[in-house]
Amino acid sequence: MSRLEDIGEQGFLDRLPKWLKTRNPRIKIRIGDDALVLADGTVVTSDSYVEGVHFSRLYFSPEDIGYKSAAATLSDLAGMGAEPLCLLVNLFAPPRLELSYLKSLYQGMEEVAGSLGAEIAGGDTVSSDRLILSLTALGRSENPLLRCGARPGDLLYYSGFPGLSAVGQQALRKGVEGFGESKARHLRPQPRIALGIALQEKVSACMDVSDGLSTDACRLAKASGVKLVVEHERLPRHPEVLAFAEQHGGHWDLLALNGGEDYELLFTSSAGLPKEIAGLPLHRIGRIEGGEGAFLEIEGKLKPLEPRGWDHFK
Amino acid sequence: MSRLEDIGEQGFLDRLPKWLKTRNPRIKIRIGDDALVLADGTVVTSDSYVEGVHFSRLYFSPEDIGYKSAAATLSDLAGMGAEPLCLLVNLFAPPRLELSYLKSLYQGMEEVAGSLGAEIAGGDTVSSDRLILSLTALGRSENPLLRCGARPGDLLYYSGFPGLSAVGQQALRKGVEGFGESKARHLRPQPRIALGIALQEKVSACMDVSDGLSTDACRLAKASGVKLVVEHERLPRHPEVLAFAEQHGGHWDLLALNGGEDYELLFTSSAGLPKEIAGLPLHRIGRIEGGEGAFLEIEGKLKPLEPRGWDHFK
Repeated sequence: MSRLEDIGEQGFLDRLPKWLKTRNPRIKIRIGDDALVLADGTVVTSDSYVEGVHFSRLYFSPEDIGYKSAAATLSDLAGMGAEPLCLLVNLFAPPRLELSYLKSLYQGMEEVAGSLGAEIAGGDTVSSDRLILSLTALGRSENPLLRCGARPGDLLYYSGFPGLSAVGQQALRKGVEGFGESKARHLRPQPRIALGIALQEKVSACMDVSDGLSTDACRLAKASGVKLVVEHERLPRHPEVLAFAEQHGGHWDLLALNGGEDYELLFTSSAGLPKEIAGLPLHRIGRIEGGEGAFLEIEGKLKPLEPRGWDHFK
Repeated sequence: MSRLEDIGEQGFLDRLPKWLKTRNPRIKIRIGDDALVLADGTVVTSDSYVEGVHFSRLYFSPEDIGYKSAAATLSDLAGMGAEPLCLLVNLFAPPRLELSYLKSLYQGMEEVAGSLGAEIAGGDTVSSDRLILSLTALGRSENPLLRCGARPGDLLYYSGFPGLSAVGQQALRKGVEGFGESKARHLRPQPRIALGIALQEKVSACMDVSDGLSTDACRLAKASGVKLVVEHERLPRHPEVLAFAEQHGGHWDLLALNGGEDYELLFTSSAGLPKEIAGLPLHRIGRIEGGEGAFLEIEGKLKPLEPRGWDHFK
């Protein structure tokens, strides 16, 4: 009998739709995209953040934990091109936790929600041995950006630089000095809401990148039923990612491909896009062709792009 | 510095709104009711169910765990008089959990969602040492039923019989034979969706009773700014609750007042209501007066109704 650890998170997500029945005509987009969309344009997404898995209280302040959890949830709305309305917060907290700590946690959530015009408007609370936040974000989009619209001939884009959050996490864990932008990205990622809204009508497919470029590129290719090619020479190289790899004996391109939690957008367009939208650099990192699967093109050769990003059960 | 355990769940819920800012005009009903309501009539609620707190794998089958968690979340929609649309499921699962177990868990959620025209349409999954479900339910109501509308002179109603789930839980824990209706209520409560919808236009205030009649009656009185009186002689007496108290040395009225998880509706009306709506017995259990606080009237005397139901942090 197979277990979760045998099939991994993606194996579970692939099986799940077979266990479920669709029956409500008011639901437009279901499991398989960044968020659920109702026929009236309401966009809903739900995510959980667990102490020891998603954050460490050793180097995350309570404000950072709140900020990052809310930002990561709102990032799914960015991936849909939706405007945020509110968050519901399900808090799991140890009974001995101090109120001042909780207040700071909510201040972190308030900070990022407030900066995007959203508010914390509901939730629930239960006792738990470790701190967990399970958040639901609601937004609106008349024309949600989906993962399934990429077509052969499209160009593949990424906003910003992949690998920063992975570098930030390692630098924080090891107590390495410097790498300020990477640490900030890891502790307080910025949901690309303005970019997502600006990309409406401009792109054929879009998603936010939470589990790593390699994993999420595979998902986009599969959802669209196309062949996706990431061109190695086009991978954006951030000085901190290059420097960290050099100083700590890693490969910058593996950090860029497999590092998760950057919360940038990955999207495709049939036409060339400007170099910058909503203050963010847009990098063309590859192309879409007919066929299937996700590949890395390196020195003229195509290698399958392995989904080596984060998997909760492997 | 105070801790969660010092102030309890209600103390936390009372402080929370002071930490938050309201800013989005599209949100109609916020924290403090059974669910959040958007200006367009979308109703959203979010709840978490933790192994060892809300259910035991000793006497809950995986189908039961799924069924009860989904039913309890949908019950918040019943309390608002809303029609269910869908559920988002955030699953926290141990990596060693068998797929067949998970499939049964989702079958239980499907069963109750399907019986109400709703579907499971999204979610997220993370690794965890214990099984946790954090669920979000979406529904619709043009005229949501709120906790805050009770007025002096109104009558207080309860659907069905309080205390069944508490009896069921004790009977299951102790391995006591019989008490079938109570055990069924504990394992598979029925969200009162049809009743909630039927009560639209008929009631002044409504909520679902999840933490126990005493705790939730205090909440209704406070939200409406009225004095609420539960009349002891009118408390519905279910034969199983009476029998369990007699056989196991407890008080039936404490089970009825403080037992949680019955997921019935508590509501108020300025006019008398029929004895039955949507196939459920409606019991008049008290009255609303001018003033504040919740009281139990017993042998002609008023005693404060202590919120002795479930508190996660005490």
